[in-house]
Amino acid sequence: MAMDLSCIRIVLVNTSHPGNIGAVARAMKNMGLAKLYLVDPLYFPHPDASSRASGADDVLEAAVVCTTLEEAVAECSLVVGASARLRTIPWPILDPREMAQRVVEHHQDDHVAIVLGRERTGLTNEELERCHFLVNIPANPDYSSLNIAAACQVLSYEVRMAALAQDPDYRKPQDRDHPVVTNDELEGLYMHFEEALTDIGFLNPDSPRQLMRRLRRLFNRCQLDQNELNILRGILTTAQQGGKPGSKTRGS
Amino acid sequence: MAMDLSCIRIVLVNTSHPGNIGAVARAMKNMGLAKLYLVDPLYFPHPDASSRASGADDVLEAAVVCTTLEEAVAECSLVVGASARLRTIPWPILDPREMAQRVVEHHQDDHVAIVLGRERTGLTNEELERCHFLVNIPANPDYSSLNIAAACQVLSYEVRMAALAQDPDYRKPQDRDHPVVTNDELEGLYMHFEEALTDIGFLNPDSPRQLMRRLRRLFNRCQLDQNELNILRGILTTAQQGGKPGSKTRGS
Repeated sequence: MAMDLSCIRIVLVNTSHPGNIGAVARAMKNMGLAKLYLVDPLYFPHPDASSRASGADDVLEAAVVCTTLEEAVAECSLVVGASARLRTIPWPILDPREMAQRVVEHHQDDHVAIVLGRERTGLTNEELERCHFLVNIPANPDYSSLNIAAACQVLSYEVRMAALAQDPDYRKPQDRDHPVVTNDELEGLYMHFEEALTDIGFLNPDSPRQLMRRLRRLFNRCQLDQNELNILRGILTTAQQGGKPGSKTRGS
Repeated sequence: MAMDLSCIRIVLVNTSHPGNIGAVARAMKNMGLAKLYLVDPLYFPHPDASSRASGADDVLEAAVVCTTLEEAVAECSLVVGASARLRTIPWPILDPREMAQRVVEHHQDDHVAIVLGRERTGLTNEELERCHFLVNIPANPDYSSLNIAAACQVLSYEVRMAALAQDPDYRKPQDRDHPVVTNDELEGLYMHFEEALTDIGFLNPDSPRQLMRRLRRLFNRCQLDQNELNILRGILTTAQQGGKPGSKTRGS
């Protein structure tokens, strides 16, 4: 994996509920982030943090506890603040996808901080002013305050998606175990359909109506693979032979 | 808001921890989703569900409890299953962004279900086979199992992002309170800089070096607004006049 997200840190300011710290650690690790900074947490370490971390204990154990936000972002050349509300101070605001793009373009050499505020009140205006830009998750305007770990999950997910998009080694999971059929093979299937359906008396060549067109529309849309094509042709051949009740199921 | 997400339901199968049901309700409501279906939950209703829902009680109260998955997705013409693992059965797999695109294109008239499985074991192969396609969050391969509410948050967020992208009424939050300067105004600023820096003896017109180019590069990049331009020109004018120590701060 070419992707290196080790320059990206998540900074939590004045977290009240240690369970949230654990859930943030889990969300981070799920997305491949490892550096957690805690500015003046109310309780840490705490059993609730460990239990919600659920396997991301390494992230918790490596967490750096700081007294001030300045300390937590000192070496960072890009500082992003999460903001649920739109403030009186107009500050550059990005959505999570735009933020992730900037973070991933930036982080190669330099440290980046993504800062999340208090559970109830978020970041103060003074803290937001220390940020290069703000990130706002475009939530339901009637219920816009995400849980802090949920917000961290969305932001980390976008960072990972942006990093994967740049990773030449990343291959999306394969969902096929056989190659897709070629056009020639598909035409062969349609000829077989026409012949077999005529043989069994379903298609009247003198009054074909829309039947073949409908079948083309259906199977063109399906993106058949070789195995599925073989199954369909097997069914047609068997039907042409009048069926053989009791014979074994074929195709797999 | 033109966006209507009311045809989209989240289905949770055999949830063990009622706190997770509450956290899912909150994640849904944050993203504008309201229809929660619970297939055979271990404990529901439960105080842990209500406490984690934290203001999304309406989603919990309207939740439909079913005995089987079939019941929960009966009217749905599109059923998506969340899968953390890649199975032996190759099934069409999308990432959350691709899934959201399909869901939003689909949902206008028809019901859509996004199905999330058990905390530890996810969905069974039999349940996955009932889905039209699977969605996989591209997590850290060494630690890929997201908390169920965290997974719901990511999927709901992508659905909302896809819906917003199609919403003609949606306007991104404004981060400026003054219009960006025009090119003419910017050229005026550079002339003013040149004149003022010459006046105060910082720029020697006979040996200007790279100074004006550097200033152009900086302020071209900044996308100045009218108010910022006025502040800079005010500073230049004041400097040209030799400064007036003790005078009031100008600009806002």
